[in-house]
Amino acid sequence: MTPAYRALLDRLRSFTALNKAEGLLSWDHAVMMPPGGGSSRAEACAAVGSAMHALIAGEDFGRLLDAAEADNPRGPVEAAMIRWSRREFERRRRVPPALVEELARHASLSHGIWVEARAKSDFAAFRPALEKMFELKRRQAEALAPSGDLYDAWLQEFEPGMTTGEAAGLLEAIRAGLAPLAKSVLARGPKAPVLSGRFPIDAQKRLGELAVREMGFDLSRGRLDTAAHPFCCFLGRGDVRLTTRYFEDLPFSSLYSCLHEAGHGLYEQGVAPELDGTPLGTGATMAMHESQSRLWENVVGRSRGFWKRWTPRFHEAFPQTRALGPENFYRAVNRVSASCIRVEADELTYGLHVILRFELERDLLAGRLRAGDLPEAWNAKMKAHLGIVPPDDARGVLQDVHWAEGLIGYFPTYVIGNAISLQLWEAALKARPGIEAEIEDGGAPSLLSWLVENVHSRGKTGTAQEIVAAATGGPIDPAAYLRYMTQKYGEL
Amino acid sequence: MTPAYRALLDRLRSFTALNKAEGLLSWDHAVMMPPGGGSSRAEACAAVGSAMHALIAGEDFGRLLDAAEADNPRGPVEAAMIRWSRREFERRRRVPPALVEELARHASLSHGIWVEARAKSDFAAFRPALEKMFELKRRQAEALAPSGDLYDAWLQEFEPGMTTGEAAGLLEAIRAGLAPLAKSVLARGPKAPVLSGRFPIDAQKRLGELAVREMGFDLSRGRLDTAAHPFCCFLGRGDVRLTTRYFEDLPFSSLYSCLHEAGHGLYEQGVAPELDGTPLGTGATMAMHESQSRLWENVVGRSRGFWKRWTPRFHEAFPQTRALGPENFYRAVNRVSASCIRVEADELTYGLHVILRFELERDLLAGRLRAGDLPEAWNAKMKAHLGIVPPDDARGVLQDVHWAEGLIGYFPTYVIGNAISLQLWEAALKARPGIEAEIEDGGAPSLLSWLVENVHSRGKTGTAQEIVAAATGGPIDPAAYLRYMTQKYGEL
Repeated sequence: MTPAYRALLDRLRSFTALNKAEGLLSWDHAVMMPPGGGSSRAEACAAVGSAMHALIAGEDFGRLLDAAEADNPRGPVEAAMIRWSRREFERRRRVPPALVEELARHASLSHGIWVEARAKSDFAAFRPALEKMFELKRRQAEALAPSGDLYDAWLQEFEPGMTTGEAAGLLEAIRAGLAPLAKSVLARGPKAPVLSGRFPIDAQKRLGELAVREMGFDLSRGRLDTAAHPFCCFLGRGDVRLTTRYFEDLPFSSLYSCLHEAGHGLYEQGVAPELDGTPLGTGATMAMHESQSRLWENVVGRSRGFWKRWTPRFHEAFPQTRALGPENFYRAVNRVSASCIRVEADELTYGLHVILRFELERDLLAGRLRAGDLPEAWNAKMKAHLGIVPPDDARGVLQDVHWAEGLIGYFPTYVIGNAISLQLWEAALKARPGIEAEIEDGGAPSLLSWLVENVHSRGKTGTAQEIVAAATGGPIDPAAYLRYMTQKYGEL
Repeated sequence: MTPAYRALLDRLRSFTALNKAEGLLSWDHAVMMPPGGGSSRAEACAAVGSAMHALIAGEDFGRLLDAAEADNPRGPVEAAMIRWSRREFERRRRVPPALVEELARHASLSHGIWVEARAKSDFAAFRPALEKMFELKRRQAEALAPSGDLYDAWLQEFEPGMTTGEAAGLLEAIRAGLAPLAKSVLARGPKAPVLSGRFPIDAQKRLGELAVREMGFDLSRGRLDTAAHPFCCFLGRGDVRLTTRYFEDLPFSSLYSCLHEAGHGLYEQGVAPELDGTPLGTGATMAMHESQSRLWENVVGRSRGFWKRWTPRFHEAFPQTRALGPENFYRAVNRVSASCIRVEADELTYGLHVILRFELERDLLAGRLRAGDLPEAWNAKMKAHLGIVPPDDARGVLQDVHWAEGLIGYFPTYVIGNAISLQLWEAALKARPGIEAEIEDGGAPSLLSWLVENVHSRGKTGTAQEIVAAATGGPIDPAAYLRYMTQKYGEL
C-alpha cells in the first residue's frame, strides 16, 4: 500500500463511518424513534449527509484521488477502491449542489403528496409532483451523463456498470418467457389451499427468528426487529439489521419477509473482513443484492424440501394447520394469481409487474408518454400482461413509493436479481450437490458457504456482470430463471 | 436577527444535528447494538466527532463568530448563543489536537484496564493508567486555563460558570451539615423493613412506565428502554430516551431509576421550542440536570404522599407486600445505612460519598496525594465520613468509572445538584401551594409547570447560578437541602 493510497483509504474509511451513522439514523427512524423525533431526525440526516459530501466532493479529495491513481501497479481491491472513488467523486461534482438540494426537498414533499394521493386514489393530485420529479431527475441525468443515454444515468445509480441496453435485453427475454407461462398457469386457475384463521404473532416471531438462525444469519452480528415495511440495514459486517412485519391473519407473510431480508443480511455478513469499513465492504449492486434475497426467499424457502422441514413446525405453532401435509404447504406458498399489487405478487407474476414499470419509465423519458396518460397506460399494460385492470389508481399507478421518492431506474434491478439468483443456484448445485438434501435438514450450509466464497466475500469489488461471470462462467442470462419457472409452474 | 448572527446560527444548527447523530450512536450502543457492532461503531463515533470539530474549530468558524459578535445590540438568547460559541471555539482551539486524540485513546484503553482491575480488585494494575490519565488531564487543564486554577478547567467542562472556590465552599457546608446528621442516624441503626422475595420484571416494567407517564413524561416524544446502566439520552425535545434496569429481587431499584432518569427527561422535554436544534436547546449544566433528577427521585418519589398513591399499586403488583402500609413503604425506601458503593447509597449518605471523591481529586491535583496512596486515603476517608472501611478496592477506590474515563471534576456537580433541588422545591412550594396534595393524586403537574417555566424552558441560556437566582431569588445555597435532610432524617 503506497502512502497516497493509504491517505485515500483513510478518507474513505471516514466517509464509510459517517455512512454507518446515516444508516443508523434511518434504521432508528423506522424501528425505534418516537413520533416527536421527526424534525430533529431530518436535520441530523442532512448534517451527516453534508459531512459525507464534504469528505469526498472537495478539491482536496480530488488531489488524494489523483495521487492514488498515479501510483502503479495495484491489486484488484485497490483498483476497485479507486474506481469507486473516481465514480463517486465525478458524480458528486457533476450535479450542481442546488439541484441536489432541490431533489432532496422535492422527494420529501412529493412523498407526502403521494401518501395522500394514494389514500384517496387521486392520481390528478399527484401528477404535478410526479411531473416535477421526472423533470428534476432528467436534469440530474443530463448532468451525470451529458452525452449519453439518460436512462443509463438513472439505472447506474443502482446498478453501476450496467447499460440500459443490457437491462432492456434481459427484461425483454424475461417478458417473452414469463408472459405465455403466466397466461397458461392463470388460465388453469388456482389449485392451492388458502390458509385462514388466527396465526398468533408470538408464534410467528419465534418461527421467524428460527428461520433466520437456521439459514445461518448470525444474531451476534445482527438483529431482527419489527417495522412497517420490511428492510435490511447494513452497519458493517458485524451489525446487520433485519426487519419484518406481522399480520395475525397471514401465516406466511412474516416468514417470507424474514427469509428475504435475511438473504440480504447474509450477503452483508459475508463480506470479507478486510473490506469492512470501506465503501467496498457491502453488496455489489441492487441486482446482486436482490439475487440473494430472492434466492433464499423463493428458491430455498418456497421449495418442497423446505416444507418437509417446516410442516411440523407449522403444525405445532398453528394447530389448525394439522390436516395439511408438506405438499399442501408447498402449493399454498406457490399459489399463482393475477393481482394488482406488486409486493403481494407471487413468484411467477412478479417479474411482469416490474417489467411494466420499466417500460413506462422509458416511455415517459422518451416522450412517448405524458404523465397525465400514465393511469391509462398502466391499466392497459396490466390488462396485456396479467389480464386484469386495477379497480382504482391506488391499486394501480399509485401503489409504489419509488417514483415519488425519485427512485427511477430502480425497478429493473428486481427482476435482473431474480434471473441472477437462478444462475447462482444452478452453479452452486453443480459445485455442492448436497444442497437440496441439506434444505430438508434445515438451512443450507453448503449453499451459504458457496455464496460467501463466490459472491458475498467479494463485496463491491466487481459489477454484477463481473461477479456472475466469475461465479458461473458466463454473462447474466435469464435462461436458468426461465427454466426454473417453466419447470416449477408447469408442474404445479 | 442580523445576517452575521443567522450565518452563525446555521452553523450551530448543523453542529447540533451532528451531536444528535452522535447521541443516537451512543444510545444504540448501550440499548440495541449486537455484540459484533463494536469496532464499526467506534469508527462511526470518531467520524461524527471529527465532523463536529471541523464545523466549529476552524478559522472559518472564528470569522463567523467575530462577525456575529461585532453586531450589536442583541437579545439574551443571542448573547448566550455567542457566549457558548466563543467558549466552545476557544476550548477546541486551545487544546492541541494531538492531546485530544491521546486523551480519547487513553480513555478507551484505561476504561478496559479499569474493568479488569475492578473485577480482580487489583488497584496496582490500574494505577499506571490512572496516573497517566491525571497527567493528560493536567496538560489539558493547563492548555484550557493557562494562568488559572487547573481544577477550574476540569470543573467547568461540566459546570460552566462555577469556580472551584464556589464548589468547595458549597461542598464543605454540605459536609459540615451532613456528617454529624449521618453519624447520629447511623448510630440509631435501621428501623425500616427490607422487602424480599420475587418481584416479577413484567410488573416492574408496567409500574416504571406508569410512573414516568404520571410524572408528565411524554412518551410520544420519548422512550423507556432497558440498559445495563440507567441513563437518559437527549436527541432533541421531541426525542428523549430513558433507560432503566430490572432486578427480580429488588422492588424499588427500577422504579427509582425511572423517576431519576425521567427527571432528566422532563428537563429536556421542557426546553423552549425556539432553542431546540441549537447548542442551547438542552439542560444548562450537570448540576442543574442533577437537581431535576434528584428532585423527582428523592423529594417527590421518596415522600409520604408518593407512597399514599403507590402502596395499592405495589399490593396489586406484588401480593407479598400486602401487609405493608404507606408508612412501611416510606420507611423502606428511605432506609439509611453505611455502605461502600456510591450508586447504591441512600439519600442521606450519598453526599458524603461524593465529597470524598472531590477531596481526593483536589489532593491528587495539588500533589498532596500520590496515586499509589489513593486506596489508603480512600479507606481513611470512608472511615472518617461513614465509619466503615471497604472490604476490598473493588468496593472502594475502584468502584467508579469516572476517573478511568477522564471525568475528573464531575463529582461535585452531583451534590450541588442535590442542594439546588431543594432550593427549587422550596420556591415551587411557595409559588404553587397545592403541589404536595397533587403528589398524593399522582404526578405533580403544578411542580412540573413551575419547573418548565423557571428552569426547563430556559435551556442552556444561563449558568446554574443565574437560573437558580432567577427562580429562587438567591444564590446557590445548601441551607434548604440541609433543612430538608435534618427534618426528614431527624424524624425518621
